[in-house]
Amino acid sequence: MSTTGQVIKCRAAVAWEHGQPLVIEDVEVAPPKAHEVRIRNVATGVCHTDWEYMYGTGEGMKPRPFPLVLGHEAAGVVESVGPGVTIFSPGDQVIPLFLPQCGECERCLSPKTNQCRKNWANTQMGVLADGTSRISCRGQQVYQFLGVSSFSQYTVVPDTSLAKIRSDAPLDKVCLLGCGVSTGYGAALKTGKVEKDASCAVFGLGCVGLAAVMGCRAAGARRIIGVDVNPDKFAKAAALGATECVNPADHGKPIQEVLAEMTDGGVDYALECVGSPAVMSAALESTVDAWGTCVIAGWTEREAMKVKVEQILLGRTLKGTYFGGWKSVQDVPRLVDDYMNHKLKLDEFITHNLPLDQINVAFDLLNSGKSIRTVITL
Amino acid sequence: MSTTGQVIKCRAAVAWEHGQPLVIEDVEVAPPKAHEVRIRNVATGVCHTDWEYMYGTGEGMKPRPFPLVLGHEAAGVVESVGPGVTIFSPGDQVIPLFLPQCGECERCLSPKTNQCRKNWANTQMGVLADGTSRISCRGQQVYQFLGVSSFSQYTVVPDTSLAKIRSDAPLDKVCLLGCGVSTGYGAALKTGKVEKDASCAVFGLGCVGLAAVMGCRAAGARRIIGVDVNPDKFAKAAALGATECVNPADHGKPIQEVLAEMTDGGVDYALECVGSPAVMSAALESTVDAWGTCVIAGWTEREAMKVKVEQILLGRTLKGTYFGGWKSVQDVPRLVDDYMNHKLKLDEFITHNLPLDQINVAFDLLNSGKSIRTVITL
Repeated sequence: MSTTGQVIKCRAAVAWEHGQPLVIEDVEVAPPKAHEVRIRNVATGVCHTDWEYMYGTGEGMKPRPFPLVLGHEAAGVVESVGPGVTIFSPGDQVIPLFLPQCGECERCLSPKTNQCRKNWANTQMGVLADGTSRISCRGQQVYQFLGVSSFSQYTVVPDTSLAKIRSDAPLDKVCLLGCGVSTGYGAALKTGKVEKDASCAVFGLGCVGLAAVMGCRAAGARRIIGVDVNPDKFAKAAALGATECVNPADHGKPIQEVLAEMTDGGVDYALECVGSPAVMSAALESTVDAWGTCVIAGWTEREAMKVKVEQILLGRTLKGTYFGGWKSVQDVPRLVDDYMNHKLKLDEFITHNLPLDQINVAFDLLNSGKSIRTVITL
Repeated sequence: MSTTGQVIKCRAAVAWEHGQPLVIEDVEVAPPKAHEVRIRNVATGVCHTDWEYMYGTGEGMKPRPFPLVLGHEAAGVVESVGPGVTIFSPGDQVIPLFLPQCGECERCLSPKTNQCRKNWANTQMGVLADGTSRISCRGQQVYQFLGVSSFSQYTVVPDTSLAKIRSDAPLDKVCLLGCGVSTGYGAALKTGKVEKDASCAVFGLGCVGLAAVMGCRAAGARRIIGVDVNPDKFAKAAALGATECVNPADHGKPIQEVLAEMTDGGVDYALECVGSPAVMSAALESTVDAWGTCVIAGWTEREAMKVKVEQILLGRTLKGTYFGGWKSVQDVPRLVDDYMNHKLKLDEFITHNLPLDQINVAFDLLNSGKSIRTVITL
């Protein structure tokens, strides 16, 4: 029996308040309105941003309203489409996007940015274009984290925040292209524009950092130095392309000095994938003066980063990346193709698979540094 | 009678100690050693960097030894050359350079930088390749500021720190291409790569800032907003291409908010030509999020600049420029050509002309904001 036009009852992990474990609840997902698509989430990654929102100090991110359904790194199948939706049909395989690409605005038409702002203010606050969410629980509106909410079996997203992907892609793998892997991979390839034979340092070897390592490798970098205080990450980094790894705790001097000595003055590219202002400064200072480029991929809204002015004046560049610089609707299907063509790895990032009702275990694994990515099957 | 091979006795403004007026002295200038060139300085600009070194708090620059001869923005004529010098001959018109271009190192061979380091450590400390200066006074070695020392009728520079320019160029004008005008002009054109129809804000309308305005104009920018707390600078800025000027003191909110409102979200390019970390942060924040580029041209070694991480993550780029990104030996003659072909203005920057014995008056004019550039005739 078709569910089109009907409210769908399904299971979701609801975050009722900050700092408390998620609760598996029966939720109701309303039909899509104009230019919206309802999708069945098949698999979702658990990203540090989800954890930070629930368990962080609150200083690292803007407050958003509770209750909400987290999750923003997913893949699924279109269940039904709202009025005016032309490019999606029921049954299409899709990846929901926290960064839209409307294709029509000045930013979408520019090759210089991926920062489309379609529905931005609303989705940042957990609602869709009309100011409301499509998910409710016990009669109460439940907000959609970044407009996505993939910790639910069903969700509704704007049709400009959805990428249609090939029908043979395994959703429990390509879901990682919804956030972490795309961000790190693009930080190196798209934002940093790492060059052949370059020397690179990647700070932080979680999902984003490992993907950055893979991006440096894809760019043909000659030296790729992984930097992490957790040496358990080094084997995985090596498997993805790191030529060597350094633990800052093993040295009696700042890591930027260690790297400068290792590379005769500094690396060509440094990629910060931690989200710590202090590490960001170290990353910038680890680049060579004449042309060093430091790309910030780690998110924080906490304190400012300190930049020694002389460091910048002598030729360094500081850039940031958001979703790896990829234009989401257009580039995510291409990244899926790259995975299918064995140009890009995803399986190596998945350390755990769990069902939805184990979602709090996934958070524990993430927080303890034992997982790179846990994929939740919905 | 030829002076080749002889010590030349001439006049120079000697800085004996920090904070004290320069003293016009008889100095002795030794003949050039291997790969050095002795030049007769004909005209020199007085740059804020000279002032900062003499009268600044000491926090803005690394300490360098006294006594020394300041001045690093000059034009002159070759008097004689040392052994091994092949591309300069007595009588050549030249501009001495505080930034070398050896033409052979990895940096000189790269299109990505102008940061040649030939003799760098020595010239930064006021001596030439052999660790000594060629200038002495009353039997005491006098250091050469940045390896140049243009507040002397004669000086000796490395042959990789000298640009040969056309014989018909007026030295009392093109001397400004030795520092300030080249720095600001290149900050816009070469480092920032300002695009046609772009919107730009230039912070600080001294020599460097006015040259940045001229660079934005040359790039075809549609809006060029001059920003300065001294409205006396606005007429000159307009003459060099500013489409409007703003005085931050006239507004009850931060200048970055004023500029964002004026430009519907922020300027495409911001150029900081003050050397203040607080102004640098404001300049970065005045750029539009998706693709804004902030170029730092103002020098400070004082406190660090604060960068709000979110500002960078959403698409902004922070770069620095040194000597405007120009490859000194190769590009300065081209800038001279541009002046001779009326593509680049210099006369407009010269507000005062004074003889060497009035050099302290030039410092006063600079410090009081009454001059853009005073050219000292030697």
